[in-house]
Amino acid sequence: MTNKQKPLIFISNDDGVWAPGIKVLVEVAKSFGEVIVVAPDKPQSGQGHAVTIKNPIRLNKVNAFEGVESWECTGTPADSVKLAKDTILKGRKVDLVLSGINHGSNASINIIYSGTMSAAMEGALEGINSIGFSVDDFSLNADFSAAKYYAKIIIGKMLESPNGEPVLLNVNVPKLPKEEIKGIKICRQARGKWVEEFSESIDPRGVPYYWLTGKFENLEKDATDTDLWALAHGYVSVVPSCFDLTRHEILEKMDFLT
Amino acid sequence: MTNKQKPLIFISNDDGVWAPGIKVLVEVAKSFGEVIVVAPDKPQSGQGHAVTIKNPIRLNKVNAFEGVESWECTGTPADSVKLAKDTILKGRKVDLVLSGINHGSNASINIIYSGTMSAAMEGALEGINSIGFSVDDFSLNADFSAAKYYAKIIIGKMLESPNGEPVLLNVNVPKLPKEEIKGIKICRQARGKWVEEFSESIDPRGVPYYWLTGKFENLEKDATDTDLWALAHGYVSVVPSCFDLTRHEILEKMDFLT
Repeated sequence: MTNKQKPLIFISNDDGVWAPGIKVLVEVAKSFGEVIVVAPDKPQSGQGHAVTIKNPIRLNKVNAFEGVESWECTGTPADSVKLAKDTILKGRKVDLVLSGINHGSNASINIIYSGTMSAAMEGALEGINSIGFSVDDFSLNADFSAAKYYAKIIIGKMLESPNGEPVLLNVNVPKLPKEEIKGIKICRQARGKWVEEFSESIDPRGVPYYWLTGKFENLEKDATDTDLWALAHGYVSVVPSCFDLTRHEILEKMDFLT
Repeated sequence: MTNKQKPLIFISNDDGVWAPGIKVLVEVAKSFGEVIVVAPDKPQSGQGHAVTIKNPIRLNKVNAFEGVESWECTGTPADSVKLAKDTILKGRKVDLVLSGINHGSNASINIIYSGTMSAAMEGALEGINSIGFSVDDFSLNADFSAAKYYAKIIIGKMLESPNGEPVLLNVNVPKLPKEEIKGIKICRQARGKWVEEFSESIDPRGVPYYWLTGKFENLEKDATDTDLWALAHGYVSVVPSCFDLTRHEILEKMDFLT
């Protein structure tokens, strides 16, 4: 990126173009450059890295943000980024991919279930710096003002960062007023898991059905270098993330299988 | 596991209990111990790590395999494992989780789009040794005999392996007769990506629609330690995989954001 040219910022999410979180992200991104939005046409929380294989998908142009080209995609978050790349963005150099701002934390293992992070990961797979933003607040009336403030700082720094190997950031903002947040903390993904995951009910025909629910457990509460620790202690957590799932450190111990 | 007690093996997949691949896996697993199957009630390819949040899910007992308790789940592969854990398996110690055998390779970046691997990953998240199996053949008439032979070897060795930290294996079998396969190779996930991903068509109303398609590109063709290399050279690839997506090696370089 040179000073002469405005950066091109691509934005998606997993809640659709009418969600409050993406509106905040578009406002911030507009202050840095040209913005193009392609997002799912319905909420896609928990979609993980799903892609649509057995059905066609479509793009519908919408007027969701003033002065910003925006489209709804009938597929998943990952579909939205992939399809945008091959159609709307075809041949254009994108400087930054953003996704979110999601309602609810994508810290710890939640990254693997997250549609928000799958959209950001698709950007990184294309060799573009990409950031997924989430606030640790599932409420529909979540306050995005602290997230907006920190998104502006992080986006600005990423646009100015030297062009090295592209990075993928998982950014989570605690549920706190801006004044109470202590700053940004670079961390690793905490080991954590969901427990007691289902609520059982009985339908009018006497047949049980199950809703996913449960509570999240931090499996390393004492570690101070994790995203869960940062969030719990008033920091914005930033985890540089990857899509190489090899467990390199045990490769040599696996010879017993050959 | 002691010699006195038969191991309990849990099996899921992303193609449902009537798919040919899971039948092969059940046959192999039965020779080692007790088997319980819970799998989606419809094909779920490309579902990645999706979970069902906004709808209830159900379990229906089916008689898909002789002498094996088997259930269909109305959710995703990840839902199937989660729900089985909290209901059918409640309180029982599972010795091994298997998923597959999938039609089509889940090598390289395909692990992140894979319903097969998401089921195996849910097992590993519960602290259980877990293996996802795939054959590098999308054909409905794929020959599973080589996969069956190698699944038996790998399952046997994993059941005998010392109880260390649980591992998650991504196993891919080349599309070759058993006799032509050179053996098992422990490898890392290759860097690769999908290119030219969409086919555009025009519907009867003149509106475009898109199907996901494309071809896969190995981004490091010369590296001989990857799963794509192993498959292309006649080996069964085994990648020990993880769900910590932190890019540890660049953590210290990210301080410019704070």
